[in-house]
Amino acid sequence: MFESAEIGHRVDKQRWKEASTRLRRELLQAQYRLLQDARSAVVILVNGVDGAGRGETVNLFNEWMDPRHIRTEAFGPMTPIERQHPEMWRFWQVLPPKGHIGILFGSWYTDPIQAHVREAQTHDRFAHRLERIRQFERMLVAEGVVLLKLWFHLSKKTAKARMKALEADPKTAWRVTPQQRANLRHYDRFVQVSEEALRKTSIAEAPWIVIDGSDPAYRSLKAGQHLLDALTHAVTRPKPARGRPERRVPAKALGEQGLLAVQDYERRLTRKAYADALETWQGRLALLSRDPRMRRRSLVMVFEGMDAAGKGSTIRRITQALDARFYRVVPVAAPNENERAQPYLWRFWRYIPGHGKAVIFDRSWYGRVLVERVEGFCSTADWTRAYAEINEYEEQLSEAGAVIVKFWLAITPDEQLRRFHAREQTPHKHHKITEEDWRNREKWPLYERAVEQMIDRTSTQVAPWHVVASDDKLWARIEVLRLLCERLERALDKVGRKR
Amino acid sequence: MFESAEIGHRVDKQRWKEASTRLRRELLQAQYRLLQDARSAVVILVNGVDGAGRGETVNLFNEWMDPRHIRTEAFGPMTPIERQHPEMWRFWQVLPPKGHIGILFGSWYTDPIQAHVREAQTHDRFAHRLERIRQFERMLVAEGVVLLKLWFHLSKKTAKARMKALEADPKTAWRVTPQQRANLRHYDRFVQVSEEALRKTSIAEAPWIVIDGSDPAYRSLKAGQHLLDALTHAVTRPKPARGRPERRVPAKALGEQGLLAVQDYERRLTRKAYADALETWQGRLALLSRDPRMRRRSLVMVFEGMDAAGKGSTIRRITQALDARFYRVVPVAAPNENERAQPYLWRFWRYIPGHGKAVIFDRSWYGRVLVERVEGFCSTADWTRAYAEINEYEEQLSEAGAVIVKFWLAITPDEQLRRFHAREQTPHKHHKITEEDWRNREKWPLYERAVEQMIDRTSTQVAPWHVVASDDKLWARIEVLRLLCERLERALDKVGRKR
Repeated sequence: MFESAEIGHRVDKQRWKEASTRLRRELLQAQYRLLQDARSAVVILVNGVDGAGRGETVNLFNEWMDPRHIRTEAFGPMTPIERQHPEMWRFWQVLPPKGHIGILFGSWYTDPIQAHVREAQTHDRFAHRLERIRQFERMLVAEGVVLLKLWFHLSKKTAKARMKALEADPKTAWRVTPQQRANLRHYDRFVQVSEEALRKTSIAEAPWIVIDGSDPAYRSLKAGQHLLDALTHAVTRPKPARGRPERRVPAKALGEQGLLAVQDYERRLTRKAYADALETWQGRLALLSRDPRMRRRSLVMVFEGMDAAGKGSTIRRITQALDARFYRVVPVAAPNENERAQPYLWRFWRYIPGHGKAVIFDRSWYGRVLVERVEGFCSTADWTRAYAEINEYEEQLSEAGAVIVKFWLAITPDEQLRRFHAREQTPHKHHKITEEDWRNREKWPLYERAVEQMIDRTSTQVAPWHVVASDDKLWARIEVLRLLCERLERALDKVGRKR
Repeated sequence: MFESAEIGHRVDKQRWKEASTRLRRELLQAQYRLLQDARSAVVILVNGVDGAGRGETVNLFNEWMDPRHIRTEAFGPMTPIERQHPEMWRFWQVLPPKGHIGILFGSWYTDPIQAHVREAQTHDRFAHRLERIRQFERMLVAEGVVLLKLWFHLSKKTAKARMKALEADPKTAWRVTPQQRANLRHYDRFVQVSEEALRKTSIAEAPWIVIDGSDPAYRSLKAGQHLLDALTHAVTRPKPARGRPERRVPAKALGEQGLLAVQDYERRLTRKAYADALETWQGRLALLSRDPRMRRRSLVMVFEGMDAAGKGSTIRRITQALDARFYRVVPVAAPNENERAQPYLWRFWRYIPGHGKAVIFDRSWYGRVLVERVEGFCSTADWTRAYAEINEYEEQLSEAGAVIVKFWLAITPDEQLRRFHAREQTPHKHHKITEEDWRNREKWPLYERAVEQMIDRTSTQVAPWHVVASDDKLWARIEVLRLLCERLERALDKVGRKR
């Protein structure tokens, strides 16, 4: 992949002057169009060989454009906090919103390439990490990000000559770090590994652009031209497809019963049995949350269910057992303006806890395949790809030590109706029932189908769904506490053992 | 992913009779429409748990439809010949042409799942193989294949009960193999590994369909209904986009020179020096081809170049050194009717040699990103994705022991003109120059750009391009022989060493 980047392209002064003046003007205009159009975010990855002009190009881009709308981030080794989170977490934190530009100096490629150069990981592991990146980038592009992946290259000869020149001059010798000297010694392996990484991640949606870094003028104009193309693409590409509300569920040809219909909604607990069980299980949960092994785990709980299924009251039975410093409850409603300017998973990545902490989502990222699907807030293509994206997301959380416990609180339509009426008749619950609840109720079969497909597609080894029949709130609360404690116990038993 | 398939769906006799009669009629009609339309091939993968009705369903499909247009293949452990080829080779051999149906009983999933169940491969290796499958399936779908992936499931309890029932009856006890007994012992691990495989390969283009296998009637109707949907989709999906001939190459803004322009076309050999060198290198090549280590390698050579670049005469200088039983020359022209009914790589997979053999392609799969691109024989999306597909293809060949040596014989436009005129004036070469050659010549800049992009995107560690300046035929032939011998020597040195 580096053949054309070793030819030794040059641009003379005259041409540089003319071309850079024009390019600069066009870049600035394009940046403002991007800001105004706000259809896409532009993310620029800057990677490559030491000395090939990565830092200079980042500075130049900031000089040529309006830096107020550019977010530049450099990534070094992971901090202790970052190491408690999935690898991609720190990159999610700095994604620019639509209309803006993000420059990532060092990126999600740096660590996989370096680790494989050092032979700290197998080739299969390397290939697997590249595949993750490919999925991540496909998702970003589908969510409205324009990705510009720049690789600055130098031939071995030029890289050596450049380092020698820097070292020879006392004024620049300090710029050569021991790390760079080590990198040059491993040049061949670095280029070999990088070549594989670039090749395997040059997807049609976001191909790599390899730039000959030997001549500053050539390299800057070339990079600038590609940036201009990306900015232009960001405001001219087709707007995302609109979704449409789903209409009706086709009758099941074979009269089958779905997952929700076959639950046993008759199970009940007496007040007395409930009170006893609650004490037992809350006590057990409290102990588990303070277990020292919990310091190497985090806990992510998800509660989903039809309106009035009892999510709020069940969550309260959990939090009663916990220290307030241990957990956080995140109620999820429609996304706000900032959230809409980002990929849909972004707002959930933000709440992912570090080790020794818990987060409880009252509704969650599953909105994508439930309400957004049924109401047509996203296109069919969007919610169809979401199953794989969500599984991938949860797998990453799990690999970083999170225990993921997901509950679907299942109620029958009759029970929902009883609760709606009760809410209307109880003054302090009156605010909990709105016109929208009644409208959603009419779409019950549509939601039921979406829920069953969601469970079939996203109930995985690392993050299984627990369907809890909740027509009796007491029984459901105890069942949730019991399942939660058992999952936690099993997970803590595994701490210290190798995967 | 197996939640809904453990509910225990049943279909009664009356319903079975009605539904199966109707389904059968519709399937047969749909099969003939598929044959007539010939837009797509339909490939059905049949996988799942032992005893869940895989074999029965395969038989039923053949009974319900016209078996003359169905190709059913069962896959067991690999044969010695298959083990000399890439893993996917045996599946490529049985792909049905457009209009036809292929049933694969056991598929490219069987070995990755089994190997991981036995813990004969790491999790990373497993994930990597799944990723390969995903790429392969995406390519099949893009090339006009409709993939129906059926997974027949049984809960552990049902699977056990079913085996016991078979064993209890002397008439059926023989049907339970020791392998099936072993599989049942590893049921939990098998289901866990399968669940991951299904989840990671449920791509939007070809999702898995999990079928509850406990009731024969339900399972058959369900599978048949999905087959009917697939057959319908195969004749109603949009026809593939047409390509358009490329028009003109945008002027290079920075006046850069490309990879072809910077070659040194002045190098020459005298007749005397050529004769000496030819003897030396042909001798070396002859020895290498008979080297015992060659029995664990195969050799794949690719020759590409503009018209009159000297491909044929260079290939002859290679074959002169080889035993006729060792090699095969494959001249590649426009695909014939059979070949057009298959994915474009299919006709090349067929010639992939076993160990100890060589194949020389005079033109190759690179036609996709050269003539097909420039002349618009395929769409932009088609040739854009081809780079990654070709890299993946060559990586698979390489992993199976093939040494891949690719030559671009580069000539200048002036030299081509001289050779065209010479051909016109030499009676026995007259047939080698046609109107089409002159038309292609007018598109030189378009081809040049396509060649440079091809080399940048497909010159990889495992299969690098060698650009050989060929204005002097003598020099080029020796250079090709030298590069070929050196690549072979390096490859044979590695035989016996671990990757």
